[in-house]
Amino acid sequence: MAKVALVGATGAVGREMRRLLDTRDFPLDGEPVFLASERSAGTTLPWKDGEVEVRAISPEAFDGVDIALFSAGGARSREWGPIAAERGAVVVDNSSAFRMDEQVPLVVSEVNPDAARQRPKGIIANPNCTTMVLMVAAKPLHEAFALTDMVATSYQAAGGAGQSGIAELLAQTTELAENPELLRTDGAAAEAGVAAETFSKAIAFNVLAHCGSFTDARYTDEEWKLVNESRKILDLPALRVSPTCVRVPVVVGHAINARMSFADPVSREAALDALQQAPGLVIEDGVDAEGETLAYPTPLGSAGRDEVLVGRIREDLFDPHSLNLWVVGDNLLKGAALNAVQIAELVLDE
Amino acid sequence: MAKVALVGATGAVGREMRRLLDTRDFPLDGEPVFLASERSAGTTLPWKDGEVEVRAISPEAFDGVDIALFSAGGARSREWGPIAAERGAVVVDNSSAFRMDEQVPLVVSEVNPDAARQRPKGIIANPNCTTMVLMVAAKPLHEAFALTDMVATSYQAAGGAGQSGIAELLAQTTELAENPELLRTDGAAAEAGVAAETFSKAIAFNVLAHCGSFTDARYTDEEWKLVNESRKILDLPALRVSPTCVRVPVVVGHAINARMSFADPVSREAALDALQQAPGLVIEDGVDAEGETLAYPTPLGSAGRDEVLVGRIREDLFDPHSLNLWVVGDNLLKGAALNAVQIAELVLDE
Repeated sequence: MAKVALVGATGAVGREMRRLLDTRDFPLDGEPVFLASERSAGTTLPWKDGEVEVRAISPEAFDGVDIALFSAGGARSREWGPIAAERGAVVVDNSSAFRMDEQVPLVVSEVNPDAARQRPKGIIANPNCTTMVLMVAAKPLHEAFALTDMVATSYQAAGGAGQSGIAELLAQTTELAENPELLRTDGAAAEAGVAAETFSKAIAFNVLAHCGSFTDARYTDEEWKLVNESRKILDLPALRVSPTCVRVPVVVGHAINARMSFADPVSREAALDALQQAPGLVIEDGVDAEGETLAYPTPLGSAGRDEVLVGRIREDLFDPHSLNLWVVGDNLLKGAALNAVQIAELVLDE
Repeated sequence: MAKVALVGATGAVGREMRRLLDTRDFPLDGEPVFLASERSAGTTLPWKDGEVEVRAISPEAFDGVDIALFSAGGARSREWGPIAAERGAVVVDNSSAFRMDEQVPLVVSEVNPDAARQRPKGIIANPNCTTMVLMVAAKPLHEAFALTDMVATSYQAAGGAGQSGIAELLAQTTELAENPELLRTDGAAAEAGVAAETFSKAIAFNVLAHCGSFTDARYTDEEWKLVNESRKILDLPALRVSPTCVRVPVVVGHAINARMSFADPVSREAALDALQQAPGLVIEDGVDAEGETLAYPTPLGSAGRDEVLVGRIREDLFDPHSLNLWVVGDNLLKGAALNAVQIAELVLDE
């Protein structure tokens, strides 16, 4: 049994965390503690058949808390994570604040669960949503064939940017659908004509090669996460990742096309063998009744599902050491809230 | 001056061809001839301030025609293309019927215009929309650094599947937007709940790793086009392409992320130099007033534009011979109708 606190319980990920703590029958010691800024304190959030009051975050609020799940952005985590840990809670942090800290393990529950045990700061980091989904498929392939290179190209849902991302997509969609003719004759006018705040440009009926902020070498921080977090999670400091992160007009569900190259030669059959035995993974890559290969996962089809889905498993046409595959997962679940709760379960099992 | 016939004038590409013949002041000999099946014959289509009657296709209908633009699918092209050529017309064919025929040149007007002159069958093929857009950026980089490998991952608009693709996207969007909650809690139910005919699954609020039909080695024919057409257009029979074609919920505008590898080392600056001098290309890859790198092209922003747009030009993080770039173009214009009309202009200039 554990006393659990949630920091950021009202957000898109926090909402899933609340649901998962309930539906997974997490062995809670009493009701969960919902913590927020002074501004939200005093409001209530649904919990089982009732409501639980949101309390103002403070050092004392963490007294008696065994596990604190943080999903309220990097600044909140940097300020309050160490305080919560000092008060005795194991912090599972969904932000990027501590992910590359050498004293903080970065854990995907199916991939490197043992790493969660070494946490000198009392903090365990939850990986970036895109990297997380990809790692569930990359790990078994790495174990079988020794991963050396990865060209990773993403299709990331608006929901990856939280509730405001979803709201912005839906509002723009309604607005732009009223004049579909403009979408083909003068897209630049359509793009300029809608309000974009969460995203840098219109996301409805559009695709943005821009997730996060532009940083070193003209890659975005989201792209650098694919490089650095993959290396840390797989314990492969020399892994070469060529990342491109792209936002698509999807509510929930991230997809990644990964061209993976290995030290050993790889075949589709051997890859299927490795993937079939991996935990947390469902293969949707088959042949339908007419013999047409139509089974492949989609972001929309992944929404609300716990598993990572993998399909379009193809040997590279020219390189016997490379494989193309299509990996899909619910960015709010396995990509965020579910993995955080699974880490909490690992801690509880110790 | 040329007498021009249009086969498939009512389709999404045909509509753009009609507009371009008018707005580009193509030196037409009289009104264009609109040809269709018996079923559509007798209807009229707008032309300048008036209307032009659609005539039934027949061998005699091509008599006196100098250039016949075909955009009515492969079967129609296979049946009527050779007949039109026999009657003396130069056929510019937008279907895939003749693209890989060794006696038919495959031409992107800025990339290999001279190839259009050798046409022993009287037929010139217009490339696949995705390949076409990509080639405009690939050619100058190949000339500068010698292209050897390409990992090409696409974001293809629903409009690439014609009017019915656009209609299906818009109809599903309206339907699914009514219940956004389902899109995050049970996407599989949302996906199964809408009618999908043009696409194999719901395209609204979704992404489909499936364009065209599945064929050899579990790649789709659309993916094979990226391999085979790139090789033919660039005259690089040994080019290694690793293709993944994906449909996205965009009305018009294709995007491709390409990781290109070259025999010579490549830098961003040298790549910019090569791209800046290339015809038909606009570079959107800059820094905004706040110093943030925000200029990058989008599919929506490309809709209605003649040029191919390129951005996110990044040196690979680990391989000095590789480059990542983001290439975008209007699939109905440069990706189809515009290039066909440009080929017709090349023929006329001979």
